[in-house]
Amino acid sequence: MKIQNGQRLVFIGDSVTDMGRTRNGDAPSEGLFEPLGKGYPHIVSGLLNAVYPERRVRITNVANGGNNVRDLKARWQRDVIDLAPDWLSILIGFNDVWRQFDSPQFPEQAVPPEEYENTLRELVVSTQPRLSGGLVLMAPYFIEPNSSDAMRKRMDEYGAACAKIAAETGVLFVDLQAVFDKVLKHCYSCYISWDRVHPNVYGSTIIARAFLRAVEFDYNHEL
Amino acid sequence: MKIQNGQRLVFIGDSVTDMGRTRNGDAPSEGLFEPLGKGYPHIVSGLLNAVYPERRVRITNVANGGNNVRDLKARWQRDVIDLAPDWLSILIGFNDVWRQFDSPQFPEQAVPPEEYENTLRELVVSTQPRLSGGLVLMAPYFIEPNSSDAMRKRMDEYGAACAKIAAETGVLFVDLQAVFDKVLKHCYSCYISWDRVHPNVYGSTIIARAFLRAVEFDYNHEL
Amino acid sequence: MKIQNGQRLVFIGDSVTDMGRTRNGDAPSEGLFEPLGKGYPHIVSGLLNAVYPERRVRITNVANGGNNVRDLKARWQRDVIDLAPDWLSILIGFNDVWRQFDSPQFPEQAVPPEEYENTLRELVVSTQPRLSGGLVLMAPYFIEPNSSDAMRKRMDEYGAACAKIAAETGVLFVDLQAVFDKVLKHCYSCYISWDRVHPNVYGSTIIARAFLRAVEFDYNHEL
Amino acid sequence: MKIQNGQRLVFIGDSVTDMGRTRNGDAPSEGLFEPLGKGYPHIVSGLLNAVYPERRVRITNVANGGNNVRDLKARWQRDVIDLAPDWLSILIGFNDVWRQFDSPQFPEQAVPPEEYENTLRELVVSTQPRLSGGLVLMAPYFIEPNSSDAMRKRMDEYGAACAKIAAETGVLFVDLQAVFDKVLKHCYSCYISWDRVHPNVYGSTIIARAFLRAVEFDYNHEL
Amino acid sequence: MKIQNGQRLVFIGDSVTDMGRTRNGDAPSEGLFEPLGKGYPHIVSGLLNAVYPERRVRITNVANGGNNVRDLKARWQRDVIDLAPDWLSILIGFNDVWRQFDSPQFPEQAVPPEEYENTLRELVVSTQPRLSGGLVLMAPYFIEPNSSDAMRKRMDEYGAACAKIAAETGVLFVDLQAVFDKVLKHCYSCYISWDRVHPNVYGSTIIARAFLRAVEFDYNHEL
Amino acid sequence: MKIQNGQRLVFIGDSVTDMGRTRNGDAPSEGLFEPLGKGYPHIVSGLLNAVYPERRVRITNVANGGNNVRDLKARWQRDVIDLAPDWLSILIGFNDVWRQFDSPQFPEQAVPPEEYENTLRELVVSTQPRLSGGLVLMAPYFIEPNSSDAMRKRMDEYGAACAKIAAETGVLFVDLQAVFDKVLKHCYSCYISWDRVHPNVYGSTIIARAFLRAVEFDYNHEL
Amino acid sequence: MKIQNGQRLVFIGDSVTDMGRTRNGDAPSEGLFEPLGKGYPHIVSGLLNAVYPERRVRITNVANGGNNVRDLKARWQRDVIDLAPDWLSILIGFNDVWRQFDSPQFPEQAVPPEEYENTLRELVVSTQPRLSGGLVLMAPYFIEPNSSDAMRKRMDEYGAACAKIAAETGVLFVDLQAVFDKVLKHCYSCYISWDRVHPNVYGSTIIARAFLRAVEFDYNHEL
Amino acid sequence: MKIQNGQRLVFIGDSVTDMGRTRNGDAPSEGLFEPLGKGYPHIVSGLLNAVYPERRVRITNVANGGNNVRDLKARWQRDVIDLAPDWLSILIGFNDVWRQFDSPQFPEQAVPPEEYENTLRELVVSTQPRLSGGLVLMAPYFIEPNSSDAMRKRMDEYGAACAKIAAETGVLFVDLQAVFDKVLKHCYSCYISWDRVHPNVYGSTIIARAFLRAVEFDYNHEL
Repeated sequence: MKIQNGQRLVFIGDSVTDMGRTRNGDAPSEGLFEPLGKGYPHIVSGLLNAVYPERRVRITNVANGGNNVRDLKARWQRDVIDLAPDWLSILIGFNDVWRQFDSPQFPEQAVPPEEYENTLRELVVSTQPRLSGGLVLMAPYFIEPNSSDAMRKRMDEYGAACAKIAAETGVLFVDLQAVFDKVLKHCYSCYISWDRVHPNVYGSTIIARAFLRAVEFDYNHEL
Repeated sequence: MKIQNGQRLVFIGDSVTDMGRTRNGDAPSEGLFEPLGKGYPHIVSGLLNAVYPERRVRITNVANGGNNVRDLKARWQRDVIDLAPDWLSILIGFNDVWRQFDSPQFPEQAVPPEEYENTLRELVVSTQPRLSGGLVLMAPYFIEPNSSDAMRKRMDEYGAACAKIAAETGVLFVDLQAVFDKVLKHCYSCYISWDRVHPNVYGSTIIARAFLRAVEFDYNHEL
Repeated sequence: MKIQNGQRLVFIGDSVTDMGRTRNGDAPSEGLFEPLGKGYPHIVSGLLNAVYPERRVRITNVANGGNNVRDLKARWQRDVIDLAPDWLSILIGFNDVWRQFDSPQFPEQAVPPEEYENTLRELVVSTQPRLSGGLVLMAPYFIEPNSSDAMRKRMDEYGAACAKIAAETGVLFVDLQAVFDKVLKHCYSCYISWDRVHPNVYGSTIIARAFLRAVEFDYNHEL
Repeated sequence: MKIQNGQRLVFIGDSVTDMGRTRNGDAPSEGLFEPLGKGYPHIVSGLLNAVYPERRVRITNVANGGNNVRDLKARWQRDVIDLAPDWLSILIGFNDVWRQFDSPQFPEQAVPPEEYENTLRELVVSTQPRLSGGLVLMAPYFIEPNSSDAMRKRMDEYGAACAKIAAETGVLFVDLQAVFDKVLKHCYSCYISWDRVHPNVYGSTIIARAFLRAVEFDYNHEL
Repeated sequence: MKIQNGQRLVFIGDSVTDMGRTRNGDAPSEGLFEPLGKGYPHIVSGLLNAVYPERRVRITNVANGGNNVRDLKARWQRDVIDLAPDWLSILIGFNDVWRQFDSPQFPEQAVPPEEYENTLRELVVSTQPRLSGGLVLMAPYFIEPNSSDAMRKRMDEYGAACAKIAAETGVLFVDLQAVFDKVLKHCYSCYISWDRVHPNVYGSTIIARAFLRAVEFDYNHEL
Repeated sequence: MKIQNGQRLVFIGDSVTDMGRTRNGDAPSEGLFEPLGKGYPHIVSGLLNAVYPERRVRITNVANGGNNVRDLKARWQRDVIDLAPDWLSILIGFNDVWRQFDSPQFPEQAVPPEEYENTLRELVVSTQPRLSGGLVLMAPYFIEPNSSDAMRKRMDEYGAACAKIAAETGVLFVDLQAVFDKVLKHCYSCYISWDRVHPNVYGSTIIARAFLRAVEFDYNHEL
Repeated sequence: MKIQNGQRLVFIGDSVTDMGRTRNGDAPSEGLFEPLGKGYPHIVSGLLNAVYPERRVRITNVANGGNNVRDLKARWQRDVIDLAPDWLSILIGFNDVWRQFDSPQFPEQAVPPEEYENTLRELVVSTQPRLSGGLVLMAPYFIEPNSSDAMRKRMDEYGAACAKIAAETGVLFVDLQAVFDKVLKHCYSCYISWDRVHPNVYGSTIIARAFLRAVEFDYNHEL
Repeated sequence: MKIQNGQRLVFIGDSVTDMGRTRNGDAPSEGLFEPLGKGYPHIVSGLLNAVYPERRVRITNVANGGNNVRDLKARWQRDVIDLAPDWLSILIGFNDVWRQFDSPQFPEQAVPPEEYENTLRELVVSTQPRLSGGLVLMAPYFIEPNSSDAMRKRMDEYGAACAKIAAETGVLFVDLQAVFDKVLKHCYSCYISWDRVHPNVYGSTIIARAFLRAVEFDYNHEL
């Protein structure tokens, strides 16, 4: 397993990552009393500590519901750099795309593909050298199997930008769309998500498992 | 994986299993909107559906906080038999023992070992033939490594009764005390439980993983 | 406008019709203080009374969130017949279909097509003669333009059953799917519904307008 | 329909316009999750988007309960000019008049007719040139048919000031008093308003329809 | 002052009398902790006990918001007769009339004049002999000075019925409409009531004073 | 009646005067929606407006629960002078005395007699010339008939200071202790006050009546 | 110390004993999570268990706020006899007396001295033989040093009845009035009670200590 | 008893001392309405005032849940020195130790032994000369009888540091571990604490009694 003893792992993103994390002003969510929300960071913390309690991985959730990549950039120094993580996981892009479809009257609320790619690349490139562990870049997804659906197509562009940045920089890449596409062969989207974006506990566990594969977590590790 | 397509899995127990399941009168907790609480049944549902979505396992939580084995017997017909489960998981005994230590003035609130064993055996023996899948009997535990601690010793007696019943009847047995004993070599008890009984998400994931091993869940199963 | 002075119009259905109507035990929602919820019955009441205040139409909402056609049948005597409506509007079928996709483990929660059609026909046929005004049967819809989508296809079967019953009985039919299909040429589904079923105020106004066309409401009526 | 694709429409006023709009500090109410309150701006948004979804009109509610024209002036720069609307709708004057009758001990809480007219004219004249669409000036009303009633007479003076300003400037004028006077031939005031000022959903729909006529909205527009 | 030492005075009526009295199931409101609401019964209790503390009058409020005379009749035995009052004060009729104007679609919610008069007479006549003190019949009112207003005219009919019954039976009569008409020469209706029926503390004190005059209360009584 | 048309009457004091007045930051309580609390200022407002509605007296409550005379001085400019009252009513001293008995360990929380008298005199003397109407000084009381009771004796000293200041300055004086002493001949203290300081509605009406006598209010005034 | 290992001690009374005990329907308050309220039973439980943890005394609180001796009699079988206590502590009489002073209009709410004495004697005499430990009868008190005060005099009569019953039957008697009289030489009543009946934590500790003296509790007992 | 008339006693510490004290911003908790929480400071206040009411000891609680010795130092000037106590009681160290076991991933949240000892010594040494009464240093404890338990061993180191500082400076020392060790011979830890740190009322009374012994409180003191 790639995450070493005592390393700090920070999750950043939007509501898919936030999932009701316990807030105390602007402070990051971490430590006692399960403050990580109920999404995949919480599930990752459960599995990491159940299977590798001796590693004592320090997990921090700084995701904010409603954020797009532009919002991440605005708070990157305080919420990422100042925390000095060893590992960073990024999952961003849902709101960048969604607002194009649910709020076309409010174009300033969405982020166009080029800005998305450039901003995300800037964040990855500038942060990667600071990470003693590594960076996991997870692509945004749309839990819709019809690849000609308008929003799915748009989301695929943003996912492709992630893949491109990962390829350029060598950070770990998690193709969540591909993961969900496999699942969608066995069930309809509402089995795992009411709105095709926010996952229920099945969907969050799918994301957690995909993340853990990227860091070579071994479920059968024995103490 | 032993649990087959469309089978029903019922969890019964006390607060360790209940963990805030959504209540609607006396109805069992199951179905939409994640009603299983935040304990190991919820985590099991996440992993089963993330890894085996095609199996469509139906999971029901009927645990009640504060219950001992005597309470289970009183509601067994309504809360277990009438639900016609294929699989049944039982985790009981904490309150049977705990009241002997925190409330010695109230002896009627505890269950002595013989009554515990006999009642539990009766429930297992009478139910086993009705289960098309199987029965998983999980032993109660005390997250305390000192085997000469008074409450740990007492809990070990109750765990031994479970093991004995499992051996007699051939139901699947999960020795949670042994599982936690291994973990306690790597951390202090409060790392996984504030009071040495109620687990945090690390501890609940440990129980979920032990349960899933018993039913031969394969984490690396591919769709 | 077909609804005459002092006639009573009852809306029955599920959460799309209920939309948070004010509840007082099992009593129907009607009268002072805008108890009809915030969905299309409320919008219909606003338009009917703004444009035809002299008609004094009595509007009652008896929809219950989560209902399927089987639930309607069980409470039909108390919630429809006993109210002696002049006009009845039915919009049912979402939950009959949805549970097949979000809860396949719980088959008893869904209603198969044949039962849906037969039950609905029975309700329509037995009630039609009692109505001095008329019956408006609105077809359930799925706000998804891809006609080969699995849930859309399934919903289309249920809509077709409605159309068939309307054709057989001569009740007024509202093809909501066709109405939404037109709108979907101009916007993506999340513009009017987060989950493709529950409409926002845009979607509820679309349904209200479709209903009002069926009863030949004239928006430009002058007092 | 006069409002063109992508134009922004801002509603300003008092509690009749506010009607519980969702507040977030001093930010204007607009966008996702139906933040416009339950009054006529909300109903206008429903009808505009149900009938003209392709126009994608951006609707913003900046009304504040309790405001008079003096309050509007004080926040005009921030809440109107800075938003750069294409269309502006103003409905103000209720509190200017009402305080003269319910709180005569507090003369500073009311606005006398001359100040009302001058302030309102100043706001209209200075804003009109900035609007690429247009300005709709709605006159305050009192839902009381007795034209010799003291408060009705007073309100008529304020309504006349609006009409005069509209005539001078050529902005669109909506004579809500005339609209309600017609309705009052068919029902008593409490049918549409408990206190003759705040409308129920019937009254709010009446205002919405009057507004929409002014902008030549066609209810029967086909997609 | 007509009310003698230790006599019991019961107030019955609707929301004008109820005014938020403290409820405990169906029990009458009386005794410690000021349970009489904030309306005229509360003010009467304050004045009676401030000026005549030696009389120890027992005051009970059994009014229910929303009641009409038909509702009073249905609960008369339990809420009046069974309490064995010495003095009874009745103020009823607002809802009997109001529903004719705000809810004409719901004719069963109003009470027509003949039924009002007959029911009220029956209650007065059958109860009068049981009262060792006396009965105060207060006429309903509408705080509107225009005597040709439709609702005022209607309310006047109901007030006239009260006056007629009082004349026939000799019970004490309080002409609240006349009292308010005098006040309305000095202020507009909203100075004392937002909706012309429910009084603010000024209006409730006006009613209290009118009631106290009927029982010959002497404000200047000295201890 | 001494209070003339349109004059402003300000009440200042502690919890006996505050009695739950509606607060909005530091703003004085006055105007719509009965913000004066439920104590004697509220009752005075009811009687003044019921009997003299043509006078339109403006009533403001600026009392703060827990205040002593030292607290009044600290906020006198903002809460009295800046409001420019015509009439001022002061009732202070309960907390100055009470803390000597319930919190003798906290001497800084009480105000000794000399400081009480000097501070109060300073406030009266400096304010009297600014009042176009007049100043009503009400003495604090203790609803305890035993004049040798320690706290009663102490309170009598504070009341005597008030009387002395009133005699020196000629302001209107209300001897509330004398008023309550008369009442206590007819009932026990808990009939009007649970703790012998905070009055129930009987006691608050007693204070209101004493205040109104001082300003020559005529309860039998006819419109 | 008279209370032996494992004995059950039941406290019955009114609000002075209840003090917010945790309620679960009609069940007695006892066991985990400190359900005894915040009054003297709670303090007794703290001292008994801190000093004599080896005795494991079972403490139950069945007091109900507002009760008088008549209320105790009505529930005696269920709330005392059925619990089979070894020790019983009774403190009743406050409401029996208080209602005579705060609610003289409601004579049925008070209990006259003869009925008080007879009822209490009946309860003591019939219960004493069932108690393997003993019965502690605590006299009601009034924290008022003036023995000619009307309520104090009345309370003294009730206290004398307790003393008389104790003398007749030989049960343990606690003269709380005498205890408080001593304290009142050193502080004013409001130092220990706001209303001279309900004690603060100082007063509750005084009662607890008086109770513990009666059962010969030794504070300096060593383990 | 060492605490003299009118002296001020300040308790500082963490959640064991805080126990829900009433907060008002950063102000210390003291005075009316029992603001000291429900822990040992509250029980001490009850016993001191029940037994020595004539001493009028002023008790203040400034403990903050979650604090370690580093946190105390940061607020020492404001929360201790500025209050000018005569007596000071310190109980700190639980969080300094606990975080080493429940949050080993967050080393900055714990305080190592050397820093603990040095900081505590600095606080004691600098404060002792300012206290006219004295300083009571209570050692942190772990309610676990197994002296080879890892956390017990660690806590013993911190307790030894306290003892050492007390010996050096001559302040009063309370060896709470020794006190609890005696109790644990008679009951299991959960009888007095759910998590072996936070005491229930039994445990808090044990601490209160230990504190009171240090100041030579005489429970049998007579007034």
